[in-house]
Amino acid sequence: MTQLVGGVVPPVCTPLTPERELDVRSLERLAAFLIENGMHGLFVTGSTGEVAYLPDETRYRALEVVAGVAAGQVPVLAGVIDTTTPRVIEHAKAAKAAGADALVATAPFYAPTDPVEFPGHFRAIRAAVDLPLIAYDIPVSVGHKLPTDVVLTLTEDGTLDAVKDSSGDLDGLRALLESDVPVRCFSGSEVLADVGLFLGAHGLVPGLGNVDPAGYVRLYEAARRGDWAAAGAEQTRLRKLFRIIGVGDGRMGRYSSAMGAFKEGLVARGVITGGTTSVPMIPLNETERGAVRQHLAEAGLL
Amino acid sequence: MTQLVGGVVPPVCTPLTPERELDVRSLERLAAFLIENGMHGLFVTGSTGEVAYLPDETRYRALEVVAGVAAGQVPVLAGVIDTTTPRVIEHAKAAKAAGADALVATAPFYAPTDPVEFPGHFRAIRAAVDLPLIAYDIPVSVGHKLPTDVVLTLTEDGTLDAVKDSSGDLDGLRALLESDVPVRCFSGSEVLADVGLFLGAHGLVPGLGNVDPAGYVRLYEAARRGDWAAAGAEQTRLRKLFRIIGVGDGRMGRYSSAMGAFKEGLVARGVITGGTTSVPMIPLNETERGAVRQHLAEAGLL
Amino acid sequence: MTQLVGGVVPPVCTPLTPERELDVRSLERLAAFLIENGMHGLFVTGSTGEVAYLPDETRYRALEVVAGVAAGQVPVLAGVIDTTTPRVIEHAKAAKAAGADALVATAPFYAPTDPVEFPGHFRAIRAAVDLPLIAYDIPVSVGHKLPTDVVLTLTEDGTLDAVKDSSGDLDGLRALLESDVPVRCFSGSEVLADVGLFLGAHGLVPGLGNVDPAGYVRLYEAARRGDWAAAGAEQTRLRKLFRIIGVGDGRMGRYSSAMGAFKEGLVARGVITGGTTSVPMIPLNETERGAVRQHLAEAGLL
Amino acid sequence: MTQLVGGVVPPVCTPLTPERELDVRSLERLAAFLIENGMHGLFVTGSTGEVAYLPDETRYRALEVVAGVAAGQVPVLAGVIDTTTPRVIEHAKAAKAAGADALVATAPFYAPTDPVEFPGHFRAIRAAVDLPLIAYDIPVSVGHKLPTDVVLTLTEDGTLDAVKDSSGDLDGLRALLESDVPVRCFSGSEVLADVGLFLGAHGLVPGLGNVDPAGYVRLYEAARRGDWAAAGAEQTRLRKLFRIIGVGDGRMGRYSSAMGAFKEGLVARGVITGGTTSVPMIPLNETERGAVRQHLAEAGLL
Repeated sequence: MTQLVGGVVPPVCTPLTPERELDVRSLERLAAFLIENGMHGLFVTGSTGEVAYLPDETRYRALEVVAGVAAGQVPVLAGVIDTTTPRVIEHAKAAKAAGADALVATAPFYAPTDPVEFPGHFRAIRAAVDLPLIAYDIPVSVGHKLPTDVVLTLTEDGTLDAVKDSSGDLDGLRALLESDVPVRCFSGSEVLADVGLFLGAHGLVPGLGNVDPAGYVRLYEAARRGDWAAAGAEQTRLRKLFRIIGVGDGRMGRYSSAMGAFKEGLVARGVITGGTTSVPMIPLNETERGAVRQHLAEAGLL
Repeated sequence: MTQLVGGVVPPVCTPLTPERELDVRSLERLAAFLIENGMHGLFVTGSTGEVAYLPDETRYRALEVVAGVAAGQVPVLAGVIDTTTPRVIEHAKAAKAAGADALVATAPFYAPTDPVEFPGHFRAIRAAVDLPLIAYDIPVSVGHKLPTDVVLTLTEDGTLDAVKDSSGDLDGLRALLESDVPVRCFSGSEVLADVGLFLGAHGLVPGLGNVDPAGYVRLYEAARRGDWAAAGAEQTRLRKLFRIIGVGDGRMGRYSSAMGAFKEGLVARGVITGGTTSVPMIPLNETERGAVRQHLAEAGLL
Repeated sequence: MTQLVGGVVPPVCTPLTPERELDVRSLERLAAFLIENGMHGLFVTGSTGEVAYLPDETRYRALEVVAGVAAGQVPVLAGVIDTTTPRVIEHAKAAKAAGADALVATAPFYAPTDPVEFPGHFRAIRAAVDLPLIAYDIPVSVGHKLPTDVVLTLTEDGTLDAVKDSSGDLDGLRALLESDVPVRCFSGSEVLADVGLFLGAHGLVPGLGNVDPAGYVRLYEAARRGDWAAAGAEQTRLRKLFRIIGVGDGRMGRYSSAMGAFKEGLVARGVITGGTTSVPMIPLNETERGAVRQHLAEAGLL
Repeated sequence: MTQLVGGVVPPVCTPLTPERELDVRSLERLAAFLIENGMHGLFVTGSTGEVAYLPDETRYRALEVVAGVAAGQVPVLAGVIDTTTPRVIEHAKAAKAAGADALVATAPFYAPTDPVEFPGHFRAIRAAVDLPLIAYDIPVSVGHKLPTDVVLTLTEDGTLDAVKDSSGDLDGLRALLESDVPVRCFSGSEVLADVGLFLGAHGLVPGLGNVDPAGYVRLYEAARRGDWAAAGAEQTRLRKLFRIIGVGDGRMGRYSSAMGAFKEGLVARGVITGGTTSVPMIPLNETERGAVRQHLAEAGLL
């Protein structure tokens, strides 16, 4: 097992065949591509991995494939995303069996819950499966922000190993990083990654890192040496590239558009075979796929 | 297979042993109790059934148990609650195998989606498993209201058999019922059930119906014969009883409190053995359980 | 001074000249039209009166004009709509001087407030100006729902004379009406007015009542005699007419569209001279005005 | 008239006598204190100035007082905060007469509006009163975020002179600053001021600047010379001090607590005479006032 300390840890896309089966060869190539480009870890079955769309068996197979490619070179994190504790624990057990080095779990969702119930949730997961546990703070999906005091308490008592912050709440991120408790924080933002590192975050989990892993490594390295001007310039370039997520705006939801764009970008870069996304996402049409390629060309990636 | 036309169709509680295994005996007694009290159907693995907390195997076992007790006397609906289409379809297949007469599915959740993607979602479920499909409109859990035009389109083309409306949007419910398309609607409200029926709804799906099924039958019958004063008076009585859901307020989330209260009510009435709820819900304490019994006594149920 | 007991009390539109001055003649005709059609009171400078768009002097002049026409035949309520207590009190004094029989005030807005501060707000207004005070519950505009217990407390201690409920929360409305405190409630809903009366509300404040006052009187009278089928049928007719508020959808905000439609409806019925709305609302174009007239024709109003 | 280019421009508190009249002497001392401590401008009748609580006459008098003290040394900005265009224009005229160098206006509020109506709103204000116009982006108060494209359009056509961003949306702020249109941006954040400057913002509008103006000048100067470590350290110190806004938590709304704390801080520093806030805000009690002083002492301000 390898240990995740920091760095760039992209949420790995899940390539699908036209029949919407897992495209194992493409996933192997993607994992290798990301490792070669300097990723410090790989996050499988995260939101960008279409985890909410994958049947259990596909989730675990994707994890096995990536763990096989990683082979201990970098840690492999598994998203164990489900509505509540008992269901998350089922995934956690399967993820450990499939080779995960750490688990990433959200607060409960769908079921109305209350922050007073969050500690019991994370503690039960941690107790059930002996792997480092990372809290995934993603209010847009689960409807709750993880309160600062809950994260601090669960870090102090050893339940949590780190936090992945996709809340967009930089004040909250900073509160964690300024506390006396040594919370390791990963920013999930593609577009304020430099700011996250400026505030002291230990690493990044950018979905766009699938398409331009080297860009995020440059940003991360610049930040590490305190060269904020260079980090900011790289961020500005990546912000432009990130506009690919809007190619389908007006014709589909933003997430359909973003998933289609990331996958089309990987096709354009020769990493995966096809850009198929899950049902009921709406596929990009030819114009939209062309727009993705145009953005990549402008970013110097083609 | 039996057909659901209307009436009172409670979302059946899922009794658990102290070890949080399915309490099969209690579930059998509960199903029998509900049928004896005149329920027109049983909705298994709905929100009140703690569906979001049940591992797959528990979900399907609960369904088998209830289908076994129902034995064709009343239709059994199965909640196939999961984040997106591919995962819902897995549940739908299992539910059919376990004896469901109809399926109840929500819009996608967790994954950011857009209403433009909802028709594809419901159509794919309906195409994959040949059972009547009921759309479950529950924005508080999934973050989206089902748009009126989507429901009408999917009813007209035969995808949807009915709608369960837990949106609280009575204007939207009325828009469905006033349209030229014959949409069958079930209100999920415990506290405005009479209003739903006044607007033309065909049935009710009240969680509180576990505890007082006869009360909701009286309300439904009064409404059927147009005796709105009697329906309103029964509703007022049930509204008072519904205050049991707040017994844990201040110490836990409202859902923990409500699930605990429904189960404690069933224990008090001698229907199930214990009031255990799922992790991470906070259990009611003795004072809170006493408050539940007090409410039941005042409602004439003990 | 006349006393408001119940009935239909429309929020009176504020006719403007093309130069966006108060059109006094039109307002006089509108007030007379509403009284002739059986309105039980008139609510001036409410949301439908474009109160948020009217300079102080226009507000008070409109009130004087309507009070002059009413001349004690029906009570005249004045919306005293502003951000917080000290500013509301200024309006309240001016409204009393201009002839108001009662005041209608919301919770504070713009300034972040908390329900714990609402009692002080309403009590200070009541203490400053000796007129009956009606709480205007309109979360969509002020960001807060008036809590049930606040309304009950302020009714019991004599601060509030009534509540105008534009919250859309029928469960909350029913909680007020079922309490032991005799709270007089007016529903602000155009489309669930019959339901509000079914729940026991004392009156209605429908913006659409400007255009079809007789329709709401018929609905109200049917409800008073317990003829819910007739009330519901009238409501269904009015719901169809209410679609006029959407004539500008896609080209403007819904409120621009609704204000334009109400005024155009009054022009079509020969009550006011022109349909000008306030800046920055977008005016209806000819097609949209034609659609308004079409709806009125279908409703039998032309 | 002086021109605002950038720098620290605090929203000036409005001192009140115990009878809640404007405390002119205290306001004069506060304005002088802020200028002496290096403020680059003064923003009168902003949210921190309790603008939503001040009757018109108090608003304009406060502006006159501050303009008199400023006497051309620094520009004086006036918040012209009201629900919609016609009412804002009334304030704008009065503010110009009272000596304002620039105007600060929000999007319409209370009245439901739509972004398509925002350009007309700002253009009408700019056309009515010839002073530089600053858009105040404060979704928490008005319910809408100013869309990036609206701000860019209105900057390009000369309507807007600058934007005050209190939206908390750093991605949106960055989008403005990265555009080809030279938008001058002021961050309204007390706690991410360094980040705002890192992203290229031209200035700061921190409410806490009333209490510690020198701190924000140090932060601003450090950022100007690119010393982000020094800026970040100063920000961390100011973040600790900012905890004063929570002294009343649990007993009042957060805004009551913050206004009380800022004013008590100014009393403790000997700048103003009393800490009275407007009705219906709840006053700090002795314990809470003590907590404010404790925070100031820890920050080295007493």
